[in-house]
Amino acid sequence: MKHNFGAGPCILPQDVFQDAAKAVIDFNGLSILEISHRSPDFVQVMEEAQSLVKKALNVPNGYSILFLQGGASLGFTISALNMMRETKSAGYINTGTWAKGAINEAKAVGIDVNVFASSEDENFNYIPKGYVVPKNVDFIHYTSNNTIFGTQFQEIVHTDLPLVCDMSSDIFSKAIDVSKFDIIYAGAQKNLGPAGATLFIVKDEVLGKSTSPFMPKYLNLKNHVDKGSMLNTPPVFSIYTSMLNLRNLIKNGGVDAAAKRNELKATTLYNEIDSNPLFKSAVQGDDRSVMNATFLLTNDGLKEQFDQMWNEAGIVGLKGHRSVGGYRASMYNALTIESVQILTEIMKEFTRKNG
Amino acid sequence: MKHNFGAGPCILPQDVFQDAAKAVIDFNGLSILEISHRSPDFVQVMEEAQSLVKKALNVPNGYSILFLQGGASLGFTISALNMMRETKSAGYINTGTWAKGAINEAKAVGIDVNVFASSEDENFNYIPKGYVVPKNVDFIHYTSNNTIFGTQFQEIVHTDLPLVCDMSSDIFSKAIDVSKFDIIYAGAQKNLGPAGATLFIVKDEVLGKSTSPFMPKYLNLKNHVDKGSMLNTPPVFSIYTSMLNLRNLIKNGGVDAAAKRNELKATTLYNEIDSNPLFKSAVQGDDRSVMNATFLLTNDGLKEQFDQMWNEAGIVGLKGHRSVGGYRASMYNALTIESVQILTEIMKEFTRKNG
Repeated sequence: MKHNFGAGPCILPQDVFQDAAKAVIDFNGLSILEISHRSPDFVQVMEEAQSLVKKALNVPNGYSILFLQGGASLGFTISALNMMRETKSAGYINTGTWAKGAINEAKAVGIDVNVFASSEDENFNYIPKGYVVPKNVDFIHYTSNNTIFGTQFQEIVHTDLPLVCDMSSDIFSKAIDVSKFDIIYAGAQKNLGPAGATLFIVKDEVLGKSTSPFMPKYLNLKNHVDKGSMLNTPPVFSIYTSMLNLRNLIKNGGVDAAAKRNELKATTLYNEIDSNPLFKSAVQGDDRSVMNATFLLTNDGLKEQFDQMWNEAGIVGLKGHRSVGGYRASMYNALTIESVQILTEIMKEFTRKNG
Repeated sequence: MKHNFGAGPCILPQDVFQDAAKAVIDFNGLSILEISHRSPDFVQVMEEAQSLVKKALNVPNGYSILFLQGGASLGFTISALNMMRETKSAGYINTGTWAKGAINEAKAVGIDVNVFASSEDENFNYIPKGYVVPKNVDFIHYTSNNTIFGTQFQEIVHTDLPLVCDMSSDIFSKAIDVSKFDIIYAGAQKNLGPAGATLFIVKDEVLGKSTSPFMPKYLNLKNHVDKGSMLNTPPVFSIYTSMLNLRNLIKNGGVDAAAKRNELKATTLYNEIDSNPLFKSAVQGDDRSVMNATFLLTNDGLKEQFDQMWNEAGIVGLKGHRSVGGYRASMYNALTIESVQILTEIMKEFTRKNG
């Protein structure tokens, strides 16, 4: 039994793995890997997946659901290109690696980027506050959860301008008010499904209004919406498995129930980090992510011993990203409270031995 | 037992489905769907997949292998952007739908496209010949096999200029002289693996020389080569399954043995089409594709009867594309000669009944 705290691609429910494996062998008489994306069987999968996204997130009318490719990295480019308007400028919040990637790609397509808030001064260990959102720009962009640094916006950025958000690492972990956003995008490989699909939730009224002189067909969201996310061959298996996972999410109470489970897991781990003298949080209190907890040893000399203990317990994926060091416990939807309790037991045991 | 003549995503070997399904359940203790792309286990998969592509196609030194996303549709844009040089012009051959897509996307990134050969005058039912390849352009582009119309280049286009080829529907079906090409690209979902990965074989010396003012990070092949095809999270499962399929290909004699099997299948079917009075080929003789055979009934009134016969035999995916009508039998590597023989037996039986 492994306890997978990996940051992504990450744990999904065991039932989803079982059902996905079955479909690789037999999906209505063929393998899911050899069916045409134009077949009625797959069209039905696509439509159910889109409908389950709407149901799970209570997506209002006037939004379309797309499963594209290229990850959030291509999403940086797609969102900037599609939201470019008269001013060819935009406001971005810099909360680290992924936000920086989004900023760079907006610049690369010719957008004048105003970074109006940043936590770079403290190596992104907090979420910026007290900023003034610019008014004379085409749109505002932020990254809801920073997977690497373990920070998370606790509320939606307030603005009257069109709002774009990269939600790769916390989408489906809790309810969100989709009506506040014009484009939400997210790599599938956290709470949605296997790597290889990228979810877009796009307000239909923003489509086809880009002022970019450069617009390849694949990067224009209008083309994908017009073709029902079948402009070209979609990532069939990733979408099928995402559909299975969304069914599982809804069967287990949807995002509200998931949010409660996620809060319990995060509270359990953060309480241990805060109360255990051999550990410290890498992130300032209120800004800590429910999905990715980053923490450090107070005494680096004990690293080998702690690593051995969690390795022996079957925990995997706990190593911190090089930008932060220490440890990162990613607690996505499918990770159980039992796995978190095993980790906190080991932390306690480690401290008893070295107390 | 189904006989899958679908045009793609298409049949792969049954062993590959079995092994892929196993890995969805258990790949070194975790599901292949939940492992980090940075884990040693997956890095090894990526390296083996790259190495097997080199082995299968006898790729010379100085080329890199990439598994990207977005399909050939994004490949149209990527290849044009990366090959743009001083003249910002290129020569394209138009052999139908996919070639047209490539032409349109080259234009969309600002390339002056010279369509120096086309078979549009006869609805793309032949491969253009006797053309003069332009000299003062940055590169030449063609589509080696047209999946929809069932045409295939029998030899590589001769030019001293950099040569780019979309080989989505015939790569790995036979040996190719990779040294003649600067960029080869191909959606995985024919002879390589499941939808969701796009193969690039790129000559290293073309990297980083684009003159395009527009170059998003994901579209610049140099960034992917520099990161060993791990610029961002790759489509893990598609790459893993492609690796399994490449192992299977090599175990069964590589592309030379596959080419012999493919020739036998194509000859068997084309002989039946040519000798059976109730059928006719949709494509001119020498230009017919070994992968995709397009053919028509000589009497459309018999359509329902023929459709019923092949449906009852467990044949799937035989319906022709709307651009051509009639039938399309895609005979990718994993389709057996037995499946082709079942189809030709039905064609004979159909003619006996209506003769």
